[in-house]
Amino acid sequence: MTRVNAVRFGGDTPGPREEQLATEEPLEIRVGDRRLAVTMRTPGADFDLAVGWLFAEGVVRGGADVRSIRYCTDVDLDPLERYNVVTVDLAAPASAVAAELAARSYVMSSACGVCGRDTVADLRGRGYLPAPAVPGLDPALLGALPERLRRSQKVFDRTGGLHAAALADLTTGELLVVREDVGRHNAVDKVVGRAVLDGLVPAAGLGLVVSGRTSFELCQKAVAAGMTALVGVSAPSSLAVSLAREFGLTLAGFAREGRLTVYAAAERLGR
Amino acid sequence: MTRVNAVRFGGDTPGPREEQLATEEPLEIRVGDRRLAVTMRTPGADFDLAVGWLFAEGVVRGGADVRSIRYCTDVDLDPLERYNVVTVDLAAPASAVAAELAARSYVMSSACGVCGRDTVADLRGRGYLPAPAVPGLDPALLGALPERLRRSQKVFDRTGGLHAAALADLTTGELLVVREDVGRHNAVDKVVGRAVLDGLVPAAGLGLVVSGRTSFELCQKAVAAGMTALVGVSAPSSLAVSLAREFGLTLAGFAREGRLTVYAAAERLGR
Repeated sequence: MTRVNAVRFGGDTPGPREEQLATEEPLEIRVGDRRLAVTMRTPGADFDLAVGWLFAEGVVRGGADVRSIRYCTDVDLDPLERYNVVTVDLAAPASAVAAELAARSYVMSSACGVCGRDTVADLRGRGYLPAPAVPGLDPALLGALPERLRRSQKVFDRTGGLHAAALADLTTGELLVVREDVGRHNAVDKVVGRAVLDGLVPAAGLGLVVSGRTSFELCQKAVAAGMTALVGVSAPSSLAVSLAREFGLTLAGFAREGRLTVYAAAERLGR
Repeated sequence: MTRVNAVRFGGDTPGPREEQLATEEPLEIRVGDRRLAVTMRTPGADFDLAVGWLFAEGVVRGGADVRSIRYCTDVDLDPLERYNVVTVDLAAPASAVAAELAARSYVMSSACGVCGRDTVADLRGRGYLPAPAVPGLDPALLGALPERLRRSQKVFDRTGGLHAAALADLTTGELLVVREDVGRHNAVDKVVGRAVLDGLVPAAGLGLVVSGRTSFELCQKAVAAGMTALVGVSAPSSLAVSLAREFGLTLAGFAREGRLTVYAAAERLGR
């Protein structure tokens, strides 16, 4: 959190006051000496974020691809800058993929057209697999996950300052990893990165829980990690539903107070 | 909107039902025969989105840089695909910038460190100018803008299915452009793109209104367009505040029922 001076107008308590805001700072992700990305994120769980981002880009396939992770130790930098650069050293095969990524320009498919159907089908070519078969899921348990996520956030964050994501055990309802960020995709990358490092990917029997809507991109991250379900507090987009159906991911929305609406792979849930 | 079959569990009306979801489809943005980007967006105002994205990337500086905009007319494509590709033809100088962008890999600054302060300072190097001097702003008028934005959305969208953004006249409170999208940044790019095409940029005396939080990225888009204010329904991030202060953009949050909190350039507002 960051404290800033602000001025309130209108209401019961107008005038100058100090406010607390969610911290946003750039994080540079490097592989060896190559800079691959800069993302705006809330500091914290930066190693998880770096690994989760590399996993989403297809550079890291599992924990064994990661040799070491460290902050920049250049003593000329001021401390804040030092903690805004994370370097991941990779095992040889993953390192070659990273080199290719660094050299990559805007790579697109050679087809003229582009549509949601093609976009979903393209992911098969990337090696994405159907969600694993699991025993029946309990809808009441799934519907209670967002409230569990909210309770696990700090007071400030419950006020809506930060997005949250979690990795949930779909049998017990336990939240194995909880991460927060100003960016929705960062919160999810932090969760997936931690799961990769903990050897939990592919995440059969586990689910991703997110504090907001579920877009194509978030659904893609859940499928890439081999999860069984994606549970959101509000609605999915049309393309998230197409993607979830293609890969057999159970996609649930409007999960509140034990209720939920399921848009894909509903056959896993008892009534 | 897209209709899908879904199943509700729990609550008063469990069972199968048809649900309406926000449509998300890929849009490929081309300049001449070069593919520059694919973004996941809600179809509609696609020409505005393409121009707004090119403006944010520094390719288009104003309406005069845009010679023509069209959908792909390849008759071999099915209609859906045809409307997911937008080609912008540019006047010569902008076209050279686009060629450079297409050839660009992951370009980063040469400095080792990275921090919010540097990131904000870098924008000066990109030619971003301080927000223009304008007469005093009315806080009650600013505080009422998000409610105006909400009322201008369609019923479905008011339920939270889509993000919204608007360009507002800060003297009259009139909303000159309103756009919606599953992606926050897309909704803003659509608004800015329309403003560029209508010759309203730099947008002195105008403000950007957004339905959610204000991040560094959204603040950057407001500053790039030369706006006087950015008004959000909920909180800004710390880095959005730093950026707004650096460029003298009036940054307001928690704007509800005529109240608001101002984090930067509050001196423009009477009490």
